[in-house]
Amino acid sequence: MIELDTLTENQNNLCIDLIEKKQYSEFLREIETMPYADVAEVIEESDDVTEVMKIILADSDSKAGRITSYLSEADQLELFDNLPTESFAKLFANMEPDIRVDLFQLIPEDERKQFLRFLDHKTVGNLFLLDSYDPDSAGGIMSTEFEAVCIGMTVEEVITELKDIEHRTHNLFYIFVIDDDKVLKGRVSIRELLFADKDEIIGDIVKDIIAAAHVDEDQEDVAKKFEKYDLYNIPVINGKNQLVGLINSDDILDVIREEETEDMEKLMGISQGDHELSYLESSIFSHFKKRVIWLIGLTILGVVSGLVIQEFEETLHKYVVLAFFMPLIAATGGNVGSQAASVIIRALALDEISIDEWFEIIFKELRIALMIAVSLGILAFFGVSLIGQNMTTADGPSIYLIAQTIGVALSLQVISAIMFGTCFPLIVKFFKGDPALVASPAITTFVDITGLIIYFTTATVMLIG
Amino acid sequence: MIELDTLTENQNNLCIDLIEKKQYSEFLREIETMPYADVAEVIEESDDVTEVMKIILADSDSKAGRITSYLSEADQLELFDNLPTESFAKLFANMEPDIRVDLFQLIPEDERKQFLRFLDHKTVGNLFLLDSYDPDSAGGIMSTEFEAVCIGMTVEEVITELKDIEHRTHNLFYIFVIDDDKVLKGRVSIRELLFADKDEIIGDIVKDIIAAAHVDEDQEDVAKKFEKYDLYNIPVINGKNQLVGLINSDDILDVIREEETEDMEKLMGISQGDHELSYLESSIFSHFKKRVIWLIGLTILGVVSGLVIQEFEETLHKYVVLAFFMPLIAATGGNVGSQAASVIIRALALDEISIDEWFEIIFKELRIALMIAVSLGILAFFGVSLIGQNMTTADGPSIYLIAQTIGVALSLQVISAIMFGTCFPLIVKFFKGDPALVASPAITTFVDITGLIIYFTTATVMLIG
Repeated sequence: MIELDTLTENQNNLCIDLIEKKQYSEFLREIETMPYADVAEVIEESDDVTEVMKIILADSDSKAGRITSYLSEADQLELFDNLPTESFAKLFANMEPDIRVDLFQLIPEDERKQFLRFLDHKTVGNLFLLDSYDPDSAGGIMSTEFEAVCIGMTVEEVITELKDIEHRTHNLFYIFVIDDDKVLKGRVSIRELLFADKDEIIGDIVKDIIAAAHVDEDQEDVAKKFEKYDLYNIPVINGKNQLVGLINSDDILDVIREEETEDMEKLMGISQGDHELSYLESSIFSHFKKRVIWLIGLTILGVVSGLVIQEFEETLHKYVVLAFFMPLIAATGGNVGSQAASVIIRALALDEISIDEWFEIIFKELRIALMIAVSLGILAFFGVSLIGQNMTTADGPSIYLIAQTIGVALSLQVISAIMFGTCFPLIVKFFKGDPALVASPAITTFVDITGLIIYFTTATVMLIG
Repeated sequence: MIELDTLTENQNNLCIDLIEKKQYSEFLREIETMPYADVAEVIEESDDVTEVMKIILADSDSKAGRITSYLSEADQLELFDNLPTESFAKLFANMEPDIRVDLFQLIPEDERKQFLRFLDHKTVGNLFLLDSYDPDSAGGIMSTEFEAVCIGMTVEEVITELKDIEHRTHNLFYIFVIDDDKVLKGRVSIRELLFADKDEIIGDIVKDIIAAAHVDEDQEDVAKKFEKYDLYNIPVINGKNQLVGLINSDDILDVIREEETEDMEKLMGISQGDHELSYLESSIFSHFKKRVIWLIGLTILGVVSGLVIQEFEETLHKYVVLAFFMPLIAATGGNVGSQAASVIIRALALDEISIDEWFEIIFKELRIALMIAVSLGILAFFGVSLIGQNMTTADGPSIYLIAQTIGVALSLQVISAIMFGTCFPLIVKFFKGDPALVASPAITTFVDITGLIIYFTTATVMLIG
């Protein structure tokens, strides 16, 4: 909404202005009705995050905590460093539990113990409980802020209880129903409460849960349940079927973004760290480390490929013109191979294909490979014929024979590279590995070597016979 | 939830069994309480989608339409082909509006007009209205099934109206409030209705909208609003601020998956079609077309790079050993260049960086490049020294000099490739283009050529002097 967007922008600018002029009471009044995300944006644009947060803290611990949850992790850490520990503890206790855990892991280990003493038992308990789950599991992303009511209560009792609880209103569409042992029994929507008889027992109007996540379930599997059932939230249960948390669709948006970034990085041979800061926030060395690991392996492979070419030294000596088109063969192989691999990896990730369908997949890719091979082979033949007029000496083979050789070799390289790009991810998946790991750089380097063998073998056969 | 997952699986298997045994009334009773997504899964696993859908249609048009919305597009088309047109029209009229539009575009053009005559005015109107929006805009993904009430109504009137409307319950957390001209005025949550005085006027309890989407707004921008404000749904308005639709978080999950797939494909030089079927559903030729476009350009570039190497024919003739390590130089350049490009493209896509910060970004990448250059350069020097013992003849330069040359050239190639990989996406972004387009294959092929120039220039300087 263009108008609403402009309104938001104007309000944000006004707030930044008020902060600059130190008109803090007007600033506090202004943010009263603003979404937390916008307030966080305003604070991030101000010169002194700590100063502004002190003002908000003086007004309301709870609001300050909520807003801090929307700040970048770098700014959250800045607050930890610059606020008096006691003030920061108040903020921390009011942050969203799942975001708080992530922040806690960024606090230097030697300062954690000291900091814990400023927190109340409940916060510490919640912190360590959430921390005990794998960060990529349902437990690692769930919120512990949810409503649950007992199956034996009446509609009226539930409504009264709901009135008393303070919370983020937008979380409250479903109320989960549990028994005395906290075992999840179902859900009622607020809408159902609206139309229900006030004396009715919740147990009589409770509906089945559509889907639930186990605390240890992988976050990607939880995301797939959201996509399959079009969910807004999902209850999280433990091994005893007790309700322990709630995952909302906004958490799942984050999960999908995070997993996509990881997949894209894996495709490019960038290895994964434990906890990721954003691009500018993370150190040069952490970037270096993430990228160099694969590169070292690939460089070693590259050096070894020198040995392969050496085998064909004689052919190469005789027809130096072959060296001119080595990059063409290698690059095309890398391109078609990683195209095929990324298409397969993506289709596997989205459950569009499964490895049971391996024959269908390979057969399909083979036909695609043939079409691409013929197209590029012919193109290369004409290209080389055209530009290669002065490339060979009088006593060498004609440029047309060279062009034929290159066309045939390129076609063979395309077919083999697409087959490698197709089969590698399927094989890795079969052995329960992550297909994205055998991605672009690995395949590129591999088909560089196979491509050179194909190239020089073809040349030896066609030129020397 | 392990137990719930097993229950779901058992129920699905039971249904498949019932279909096989043609016990249709038991099947209809069983699916009564099942989520539509599960029923769709069962139908897709059965041998005859059309047969099963006929049974469900005989039971309820509305249920059959809902379930069809969850089927794959290939199955939806199968129903179009095999059901009597009149039956299919009933199904179609009950499908979710946004999914229906996508399906309509897949129906062969010459059959569309004939089919339209079986539909009622309202469905046709809705269809063409939704069809008029860009499929990648808010209008293209919004649902037209939403609740809106007038600002002048009382709480009691609203509750009575809600009772009368049949709909997917899980859509109904907020009720949007409009005035007599359908202009969006705000929202009330069902929870607020629960606690409000029955005689109160909605206008007095209405809350501001946190965010809204304009019908023509790009779907990726809408997704960013969801992520920023942690939304469950967003109202869609037209140029007159009238409420025209609603986008739910499940639509946004689809948008993000789709955009990520596109980005990944762009990274791999796979061009985009208008409407994408899943991997196995799309034709060989459409796969071929998507992949070959970039490849043709890159092959031409590859042929041209032959001309570049020809310039160094003399050096190459003298030191054939240099040809052995051409693939190393080219592949490493491609790898580091596309790593850098994809990191930058990803950070731009997630708004972690903006082009205003170009200096900071380039400086950061330069330092990373230096670290990688030094590491790989030293590695290549030792590698080549080790394996290259018998690669040079007595009268040629020593293998150590060759290894030094390769180490230096590789370092220079790493630095230049990372700089190209960093700057290209930033430049494209500056000119409002899509950074993902100058991705892996383009950069790989480009740095292949610059790498060869660097390589032979370094060799000429160091070996010939």
